[in-house]
Amino acid sequence: MKLLTVDTISQAQDKLLGYAQHILPKTEKITIENAVGRVLAYDAVAQENVPNFYRSTVDGYAVKATDTQGASESIPTFLRVVEDVAIGHPAKSTIKSGECAYVPTGGMLPAGADAMVMIEYTEMFSDDEIAVYESTAVGKSVVIPGEDVKQGATVVKKGTVLRAEHIGALASAGVWEIEVFVPWKVSIISTGDELIAPYDALSLGQVRDVNTWSLNALATQCGFNVVRCIKVKDDESLFRAELENAKKDSDIVLTSGGSSQGKKDMTNDVMDSVCDEGTFTHGLSIKPGKPTILAFDKASATFMIGLPGHPVASLTVFQALAVNLWKTVTRQPPQKPLVGKMETNVAGAPGKTTFMLAKTYISDSGEFMVQPVPAKSGLINSMVDTDGYIEIDMNKEGLRKGETVFVHRFGL
Amino acid sequence: MKLLTVDTISQAQDKLLGYAQHILPKTEKITIENAVGRVLAYDAVAQENVPNFYRSTVDGYAVKATDTQGASESIPTFLRVVEDVAIGHPAKSTIKSGECAYVPTGGMLPAGADAMVMIEYTEMFSDDEIAVYESTAVGKSVVIPGEDVKQGATVVKKGTVLRAEHIGALASAGVWEIEVFVPWKVSIISTGDELIAPYDALSLGQVRDVNTWSLNALATQCGFNVVRCIKVKDDESLFRAELENAKKDSDIVLTSGGSSQGKKDMTNDVMDSVCDEGTFTHGLSIKPGKPTILAFDKASATFMIGLPGHPVASLTVFQALAVNLWKTVTRQPPQKPLVGKMETNVAGAPGKTTFMLAKTYISDSGEFMVQPVPAKSGLINSMVDTDGYIEIDMNKEGLRKGETVFVHRFGL
Repeated sequence: MKLLTVDTISQAQDKLLGYAQHILPKTEKITIENAVGRVLAYDAVAQENVPNFYRSTVDGYAVKATDTQGASESIPTFLRVVEDVAIGHPAKSTIKSGECAYVPTGGMLPAGADAMVMIEYTEMFSDDEIAVYESTAVGKSVVIPGEDVKQGATVVKKGTVLRAEHIGALASAGVWEIEVFVPWKVSIISTGDELIAPYDALSLGQVRDVNTWSLNALATQCGFNVVRCIKVKDDESLFRAELENAKKDSDIVLTSGGSSQGKKDMTNDVMDSVCDEGTFTHGLSIKPGKPTILAFDKASATFMIGLPGHPVASLTVFQALAVNLWKTVTRQPPQKPLVGKMETNVAGAPGKTTFMLAKTYISDSGEFMVQPVPAKSGLINSMVDTDGYIEIDMNKEGLRKGETVFVHRFGL
Repeated sequence: MKLLTVDTISQAQDKLLGYAQHILPKTEKITIENAVGRVLAYDAVAQENVPNFYRSTVDGYAVKATDTQGASESIPTFLRVVEDVAIGHPAKSTIKSGECAYVPTGGMLPAGADAMVMIEYTEMFSDDEIAVYESTAVGKSVVIPGEDVKQGATVVKKGTVLRAEHIGALASAGVWEIEVFVPWKVSIISTGDELIAPYDALSLGQVRDVNTWSLNALATQCGFNVVRCIKVKDDESLFRAELENAKKDSDIVLTSGGSSQGKKDMTNDVMDSVCDEGTFTHGLSIKPGKPTILAFDKASATFMIGLPGHPVASLTVFQALAVNLWKTVTRQPPQKPLVGKMETNVAGAPGKTTFMLAKTYISDSGEFMVQPVPAKSGLINSMVDTDGYIEIDMNKEGLRKGETVFVHRFGL
């Protein structure tokens, strides 16, 4: 008989990571046009210096700074205007001593010029001559080539989940094609004759299948590719056939439903026989969510996760295991949690990590407050109108009112 | 000659809202299977009581509570077991005094029973009789029909941007089809001969077109439907033709590029003539981002926004105007900003609202800190690795080190 292993979250995470080399995601080339939410697989480097020319930050005249030494309101310097540079076009002249060129904001300084004089400190003196009433210094009001970013320098780091700001930065550095990770394919298989889909009629004694749809949504939020959501009857051979089928095209197979002991045993036995590495975690020391089963099939490179039936637990376990693993293998930095103060005391469960949904708000005194929402007060009300979840360490009795806590968000 | 109007952000928002009745988004029916990120158009109500039966929260026996009065370790009560209820099936019996039925966790209590006794406090006494060693009370370990949510009650409120938790709650209340807002169609038109697409070769003096791609990304993040991203040459008649074309199928037309005065005038003149209501805002008292032009065409129900050329400004103005308007008309609650403490002093611009990108982090002492990232220190570095933006009120000199501030995020 096989020993049943109950793991902490971090033990289970470590075991998953041990197998992760077998399911490292592939990468693919896309353009920045369709890159929102994708994870960058390699550092994206600047294709050119930004800017790629000496750029003026003001409207005015490009000069040799030494020519303006000593210039003042009362004793101007006179310079000959040799060019009127247009924005978006290269400057053609080479400025010699005694010469200057008009350059608009964003325009290019001609060769030989090393500083700008703002137009406000100049005056047209004749058709091709200006009076300069202020001295300037080398580099004044000029951005030098590569000052924003140098050719070949990293613009956006690998592991970044791309948002508008990153895509703008890539565009500005001439990066059009990027290499991103191909999302994992996920199958969601629910079991349980008592679980009724939201689109079917409900009879007395039956409950709705919640987890298939919340997991489908969360997997989608994370950018995973959900390839199937199916329901199988409580029949071992049908369940086995679906797992066998799913492992052909999935990186992760989630099973949901079956909180009763008999069904847990069935899930464990079937996963154990379908996966060549078998089941390696048979429970998590967390609350809620103990009945979690983990298995790995090396031949098809598929993780199987038998999730707990409790709707909040199935989301938190999916987040803590599958999403966490994805973030690790794609080298994403850990989630930046929200930081707030507990509104009330809340008890933990000694020896178990407790996960609890939480709501955040800004108090009248401007503090960011965290209100725990225990699931027992009503499942539906506990799921809507929350901003994430808090975690109570297994070695802590609970969290105290006023204590600073982190709120983790699903899907980030 | 038309007077040019410079508005504050809230004046411009009010003007947009005045026209908003003409471009209220349509709604459409979808299923919760594909609902992530969509905005609920009407309150979603429970299709049935949740639960729809008297549900046990423990493994044990359903009893009449009065039958167990006085039961104890030393003086048990004896009850006849008349049914073994299976999970997912209706209980068939009616419990009379002296009778009980086995009910597993999640199972249905038979009629007549009003409480549960946990199996731990019972013992099989004969084939169809148990001894009960503890008294129970009416309602003990029982969830009554509608206790979680009553049929017809609101499960998820209109204006909610749907995430996994909401979709789980909808599933649990038997809601499969929902009515959501059809996203606005957005056209992005960039102008400026000096602006070069990231996929084209860059010549000396030219700069990359950043805004088309960051705006395309941000519009996508917000769930808008970007119908075109095109670039037109600096030619008034070509620009006019593209605006005329875009207003046929867009709710919002964004134009970008053209920071020079001549180009601003051209954008203003063409928008003014293409839109039957003309241009009504010719600048915003914000920093950066003054050159913003707003126009409305009633006949085609299209807003046109001439965005400033500064990449950070174009994102913040799009967020403050277009995203804010969408959130208002779809009745979304305002964004919950991040709340943190300023790391340093930062100066504002008297008479102008200042927008500045910001980075957040957790200090060694566990405080949520906000680090302003002035755009002048380098465009690319200011865009990546930030978490959102802070706003400095036009009537404030700046923000002080240690002051509590809100960080707003793009796309939320």
